[in-house]
Amino acid sequence: MSLKDKIAVIGVGLCKFGENYHMSTNDMLVDAAFDAYADAGIDSKEIQAAWVATLSSGTSGTMLADPLKLYKVPITRVENFCASGMDAFRNACMAIAAGMYDVALVAGVEKLKDSGQRGLGTFGTHPVLAYGTTAPSMFAMAATRYMHKYGITKETLAQIAVKNHKNGTKSPKAHFQMEISVEQVVKAPMISSPLGLFDCCPITDGAAVAIICRADLAKKYRDDPVYVKGIGLAVTSGQPYYQPKNDYLSFEATTLAAEQAYKQVGITNPRKEISFAEVHDCFTITELLVYEDLKFCKKGEGAEFISTAALDGELPVNPSGGLKSFGHPIGATGIRMIYELTTQLRGQAGPRQVKNPQLGLAYNLGGPGSVGIVSILGN
Amino acid sequence: MSLKDKIAVIGVGLCKFGENYHMSTNDMLVDAAFDAYADAGIDSKEIQAAWVATLSSGTSGTMLADPLKLYKVPITRVENFCASGMDAFRNACMAIAAGMYDVALVAGVEKLKDSGQRGLGTFGTHPVLAYGTTAPSMFAMAATRYMHKYGITKETLAQIAVKNHKNGTKSPKAHFQMEISVEQVVKAPMISSPLGLFDCCPITDGAAVAIICRADLAKKYRDDPVYVKGIGLAVTSGQPYYQPKNDYLSFEATTLAAEQAYKQVGITNPRKEISFAEVHDCFTITELLVYEDLKFCKKGEGAEFISTAALDGELPVNPSGGLKSFGHPIGATGIRMIYELTTQLRGQAGPRQVKNPQLGLAYNLGGPGSVGIVSILGN
Repeated sequence: MSLKDKIAVIGVGLCKFGENYHMSTNDMLVDAAFDAYADAGIDSKEIQAAWVATLSSGTSGTMLADPLKLYKVPITRVENFCASGMDAFRNACMAIAAGMYDVALVAGVEKLKDSGQRGLGTFGTHPVLAYGTTAPSMFAMAATRYMHKYGITKETLAQIAVKNHKNGTKSPKAHFQMEISVEQVVKAPMISSPLGLFDCCPITDGAAVAIICRADLAKKYRDDPVYVKGIGLAVTSGQPYYQPKNDYLSFEATTLAAEQAYKQVGITNPRKEISFAEVHDCFTITELLVYEDLKFCKKGEGAEFISTAALDGELPVNPSGGLKSFGHPIGATGIRMIYELTTQLRGQAGPRQVKNPQLGLAYNLGGPGSVGIVSILGN
Repeated sequence: MSLKDKIAVIGVGLCKFGENYHMSTNDMLVDAAFDAYADAGIDSKEIQAAWVATLSSGTSGTMLADPLKLYKVPITRVENFCASGMDAFRNACMAIAAGMYDVALVAGVEKLKDSGQRGLGTFGTHPVLAYGTTAPSMFAMAATRYMHKYGITKETLAQIAVKNHKNGTKSPKAHFQMEISVEQVVKAPMISSPLGLFDCCPITDGAAVAIICRADLAKKYRDDPVYVKGIGLAVTSGQPYYQPKNDYLSFEATTLAAEQAYKQVGITNPRKEISFAEVHDCFTITELLVYEDLKFCKKGEGAEFISTAALDGELPVNPSGGLKSFGHPIGATGIRMIYELTTQLRGQAGPRQVKNPQLGLAYNLGGPGSVGIVSILGN
């Protein structure tokens, strides 16, 4: 029941994330894929199978085959709300572990700015809009409840935005490279009370690619492969916010996915054993809740943990700058997280490098808390 | 590089296929899933992971979690044009073979009649409409070319429709149970010359479910499990019809997928070694081309093969009645084929039972010939 050390990540690539009105979905996929090919030192002819993740920027495996001229191999499209990217990665890992293929490519992409459905502070074509609400208004309920229960303020949440934007200044491919202050966050235009503009991740176009192979073949491609240690996925109801029992203070899918991954890796004390994490900070409150759901700290102690999550803290969270800096091009996000884990674990993250990382955790949230997926990578 | 004998199919289920205006997507999924639970003699609590296929009747794993109350387990949505169903099956098989899960459920569903985009003889929301053409007009080009090259007539193609509708009278869950004559086919209203109404599969709602497990656990559930012998998937360009080199007489993705599957199983003479097949007869011409692409006969000999493909022939094709009788609720079709293979291999197909089957082949086509997937099951 484990993928531990069966799969290696040998190449990762990103296009520049941002308002890419000048690029098609294909342009972004090509940029990210050739970045990954160069990183792996691999020819695209060696790719034996591929997976592509998108919520609404394309259909079927042909959406990857045509831009990459990756013809005649199996390509599967995976969609799982905002967690599409990491679930595509998971399915690719299982295919390699099954012995079906030696080398596979996983791509994720989303073009949100041209979708015609964008709205300030919302995710362009986010599917929950169909339920009559927006992402900010749903996560605002969590923030309101957390404030009521544990007495935190808008200033507390602002610290998360400030931390992630500071980290983002060190990520050349992030959408935003700008520091912000607590005062700016608190005084920003209100989106859905208590969440203001800087509590929300931006609306962004982007693509990300990872190339993986059988662990025993990895050294053929590079001296410093990174290995998959465990992946957990859990799905709850599509409407967790509207269940009478919901207390708005936790995402059950997250805790379940983390439990699966920790069990596979043999982790009993995540706070001590995880070196750093990339998590789904679609809103500041999301990152706060995730500290607790991932068992980095106890319930209600998220606010105290923020300083620990700093780039030079004991357990850095979102060294890349997270969704706050990169935005959330839906299909790309989970694979962008794998990019950051890989880069950090190789010690190639430059000014945002965390100290001596052994195990990195990536957490991708989907839907209104209904899909949680946790991947753990290590050397 | 093979799944051979690692995975068993222990349960299969279908809802009644048809114009299900009275049923929601959820209703159809529930009918198919509980049919499969009963068939496997399994409690839904034993399902450890799931996959769901649809082109446009839902999003994310939650679309399966909510109707089946299949909460807290991993669920992935797979989409690969008209081949979505069988690709979901393939990904589930690889996950089991990887050792990640012991028991998994695969569901496929599509609701086409309420889509608001239906048109006579077309697939409701078929994505190729976006390219400015319809499915009938594209496959009509293949029929025209085949007629020109090999001298067949509308009467030749009509024999395939007659055969499949006759078989369909023996499938209680098919959309249509009615025999038709060559004269009816030839005189039917023209859809896209030379394809008339009865050369096209109908527009249908439906859902199908398969339950699979590790082969070594299968006997715990039933005495007559069916085993996966091989699965091949190939993707070519999304616009194969508009490539200058296309001769309209073959789907390259089909031949490549079949080669992969035959290699995994060790098949060198498909005509002799395959006992029967369920293939993607979205149009009569499609089934004719597929005889050749699957190497059941040589190029240009498809017309002669039609009699061999009869229910009492040497290599029965579409004993269920195929898409001609069941329609093509897109996400469901590939899994509906797995249902038929399983039922036939167990010897439970009643009046449509083929004689002493050893190996059954299922072939699901996606897009305008761009996605081909072949599964081979056996005892």
